[in-house]
Amino acid sequence: MNGAQSLIRTLVDAGVDVCFANPGTSEMHFVAALDSLKSSSAHELDADASNAGEHDADTSGEPEMRAVLALFEGVVTGAADGYARIAGKPAATLLHLGPGLGNGLANLHNARRAHTPVVNVIGDHATYHKQYDAPLESDIDAVAGSLNGWVRRSQSPAEVGADAALAVAAAQKAPGQVATLILPADVSWGDGGEPVKPVPPRVPQRVTDVRGIAEVLRTGAPAALLIGGPACREPGLLAASRIAEATGAKVFIETFPARIERGAGLPAIERLGYLAEHVTYQLDGVKHVIVAGTKPPVSFFAYPGKPSELVPEGAQVHTLAGLDQDVVAALKSLADEVAKDKRPAVQPARRPALPSGPLTPQNWVEVIGALLPEGAIISDEANTSGVLLPAATAGAPRHDVLTLTGGAIGQGLPVAVGAAVAAPDRPVVALQADGSALYTISALWTMAREHLDITTIVLNNRAYAILRMELQRVGAEAAGPKANDLLDLSRPDLDFVKIAEGMGVPATRATTAEELAEQFARALAEPGPHLIDAIVPPLM
Amino acid sequence: MNGAQSLIRTLVDAGVDVCFANPGTSEMHFVAALDSLKSSSAHELDADASNAGEHDADTSGEPEMRAVLALFEGVVTGAADGYARIAGKPAATLLHLGPGLGNGLANLHNARRAHTPVVNVIGDHATYHKQYDAPLESDIDAVAGSLNGWVRRSQSPAEVGADAALAVAAAQKAPGQVATLILPADVSWGDGGEPVKPVPPRVPQRVTDVRGIAEVLRTGAPAALLIGGPACREPGLLAASRIAEATGAKVFIETFPARIERGAGLPAIERLGYLAEHVTYQLDGVKHVIVAGTKPPVSFFAYPGKPSELVPEGAQVHTLAGLDQDVVAALKSLADEVAKDKRPAVQPARRPALPSGPLTPQNWVEVIGALLPEGAIISDEANTSGVLLPAATAGAPRHDVLTLTGGAIGQGLPVAVGAAVAAPDRPVVALQADGSALYTISALWTMAREHLDITTIVLNNRAYAILRMELQRVGAEAAGPKANDLLDLSRPDLDFVKIAEGMGVPATRATTAEELAEQFARALAEPGPHLIDAIVPPLM
Repeated sequence: MNGAQSLIRTLVDAGVDVCFANPGTSEMHFVAALDSLKSSSAHELDADASNAGEHDADTSGEPEMRAVLALFEGVVTGAADGYARIAGKPAATLLHLGPGLGNGLANLHNARRAHTPVVNVIGDHATYHKQYDAPLESDIDAVAGSLNGWVRRSQSPAEVGADAALAVAAAQKAPGQVATLILPADVSWGDGGEPVKPVPPRVPQRVTDVRGIAEVLRTGAPAALLIGGPACREPGLLAASRIAEATGAKVFIETFPARIERGAGLPAIERLGYLAEHVTYQLDGVKHVIVAGTKPPVSFFAYPGKPSELVPEGAQVHTLAGLDQDVVAALKSLADEVAKDKRPAVQPARRPALPSGPLTPQNWVEVIGALLPEGAIISDEANTSGVLLPAATAGAPRHDVLTLTGGAIGQGLPVAVGAAVAAPDRPVVALQADGSALYTISALWTMAREHLDITTIVLNNRAYAILRMELQRVGAEAAGPKANDLLDLSRPDLDFVKIAEGMGVPATRATTAEELAEQFARALAEPGPHLIDAIVPPLM
Repeated sequence: MNGAQSLIRTLVDAGVDVCFANPGTSEMHFVAALDSLKSSSAHELDADASNAGEHDADTSGEPEMRAVLALFEGVVTGAADGYARIAGKPAATLLHLGPGLGNGLANLHNARRAHTPVVNVIGDHATYHKQYDAPLESDIDAVAGSLNGWVRRSQSPAEVGADAALAVAAAQKAPGQVATLILPADVSWGDGGEPVKPVPPRVPQRVTDVRGIAEVLRTGAPAALLIGGPACREPGLLAASRIAEATGAKVFIETFPARIERGAGLPAIERLGYLAEHVTYQLDGVKHVIVAGTKPPVSFFAYPGKPSELVPEGAQVHTLAGLDQDVVAALKSLADEVAKDKRPAVQPARRPALPSGPLTPQNWVEVIGALLPEGAIISDEANTSGVLLPAATAGAPRHDVLTLTGGAIGQGLPVAVGAAVAAPDRPVVALQADGSALYTISALWTMAREHLDITTIVLNNRAYAILRMELQRVGAEAAGPKANDLLDLSRPDLDFVKIAEGMGVPATRATTAEELAEQFARALAEPGPHLIDAIVPPLM
């Protein structure tokens, strides 16, 4: 068994059985090894069903690695992020040397901010070849190190299995991180590989005493409970709501959570705003800020003369559970302490009526709210176009929302790919701003190739609308023609219908609410990917 | 004057007057400053021509910065590379924090390998905001450091001018490199900026004595002269050819030069092959390898059981001129020493006849050779589809070829953008493999926006053909269905006509040599960008 085979066997044995890949020459043994695992089970299969077709072979029951090809590494890494947010376990990536890592870095940054477990496999030159400084040589370790996760370079085929098992455990170490395994080509092709059994990841620490926080809440002083991470799913939301009902504390979800459960039957908890001014308003008068599974709020960017820290002056910060602690258990303990007999406040089922007329920032979200199917997963990179979305979907059937955690645009379509691979039976809706869509647009091709059930709605306002707003907010002087031109995407207009069709995804254009509703309903009813180019005016 | 204004004024005064940009919030003051420079000359202009329109204002004669918007940072950095290869001076980039640098890293890697001068400007959080670890915070310095160039972080508005002047000088330090200036938002918006006069870059060192190399050549032992860098343009090629004519040495150009001048009237010098086997054949029997402006050849990748170093065993390596030396002057000195009365061997004008029939790897290059216009610039990322191109274009009118220097695919279209901005009067031809095209496909939108005279021919063989070859070459076992599937781009087929039209570039499809010739001629005759989706079978 060579190093690559022991890697794949070890990963699969640890439950990592999906690999998003954009391979090159240095990864060819990994690619070849995908079939060797399969072959090892093919003999048994042949005996049972000698006429089994290629697809039937996948049903052998032998654990094996599913490889999903992307045409750009930013799709690979974003898909691995989206996959793990839904599957609750890591996928592997397969990247080609330093430039491949560079192309995937922005979405690994988002994954890092989401605390998503990712097993990031990067092929490198053979160990003895690095000294020659061949054209593709670069400092992979330095770039991988910038992700503040776990990085290891396998030195021999015999070590690969152990390194891979450690990588999976490291990725899953609470609260989750990017674990990068650098795999030199000769370590991949050399003999002596041995699969290694899974290593248990470090589980979240228990919070042992919540009575101090309970005391704070019982004083009755105005308090805000700020939740994040795993607390944004049903058990955490219910506990947080009970605490709020019992104590009068306001509850907020962190600004950009990795995954939120929403919809009828769940507490509808407001997210902290993106704009510092909004957060200041939300936390106005608060004397205690209790953080649970997240950090005290800071401004997304600095602005001249405005504070970076958004905890109100004079307010005290208390940590119920840190990022590496079991935040859901802590919230439940606290609820049991202060809200023994309280029920959570849950959102009744309620959908907006289907609107009509030319698309606006208000009516497109009503279409989504009116039609969103049960169990949908929303990959939300609508940016400025999406600010009215939460209200319109609060009472829709139960769904998940995956947000842009690290601010690196180009996440939405790849995360939708990964979510759809993780949950093939759930409809995925990608709400995608036009300016951001182009960063990783070839995700559409992977959607078509894998026949993923994803409806992409491009909110096409033909501008970097958020930057028009930010240009004013940073206090830059009145924008001149050159500045405005750099924020304008209308010369020429992007035609997302043609772009999608060019990548094999059926597409339509909507300019009215009626058209959007009709096209969205049709896309949801048909399996496979669809794209709707929704022409929406900018919010401001 | 704020820091951003002093930055732009300093860059423009140093001759850096083009900026390829994909800005975000932290770069908004840079964006606003683009107009402030213009405004400072607008008053004078108003007196002369009060009815001057927006475009007339550009003719004020005041040096100012042209900003070219791209929808993805890989286009920004690749365009800066292509611009400098043709303009002979650096452009600036404008990137948004660490993720923006990540997205631009692959083409900065190619620029590094091309020794292209690039002034790489990266906006960062305000100095006082970094401690809060806001979502977009990351280790920009570590990632920029991986480029082995020059990195500086401006600490105050008063320092920006001096830092910018040093950055321009550092970028141009022989043989050229990526100089990264990290610009915190408050340093950009703060007052106290002062423009600084240009700093002279370090010029290439003179080679003082070529007599030792001349002696080696006079022994008559089989020798190869391997040239690279600036030696690949007319003066270097002529000197190298004279040396070869006089001494019998074989001359080769490095495998992936940044820029080669080619065509009728110039020596037609063979490039070293991409495949190690090919180089071994080219250098067979050679006893002396003389390198001039490049390094001794090494294998692009390692392969099991094959050598990494490609200098024949027992051959001696001699350095005529290192990368930081004046290689053209050294070649001229050597030619004067060993080839006083020799004329160079130059390629006569000769074009292939226009071929007919379905497109093949042979006949599409004949179409290019038959129709390539005088003064064309070829951005060559045809990869496997292009192996027969050099022979077909050797006798075409004088042209430049820009090659994929660092092996990070997705360079071709952005480099074409930069070349067209640098040379608006020259036709640019981008020869682009399909698999690589998707990495930076939004370059097409910038071509349309700037009305660049670029004809893109996509060599659409619907496969990662090079990887099919490499899978065998690395000695991986017989490829199974999963491996083959990962190298196949035909499910679904990419329709580059629709993709191009979706980004505002007129496009057609060619399946025969006649169609390609007709479409190529028409695209060349019309100004502005065009794309031809050429359906070509894989080379093997």
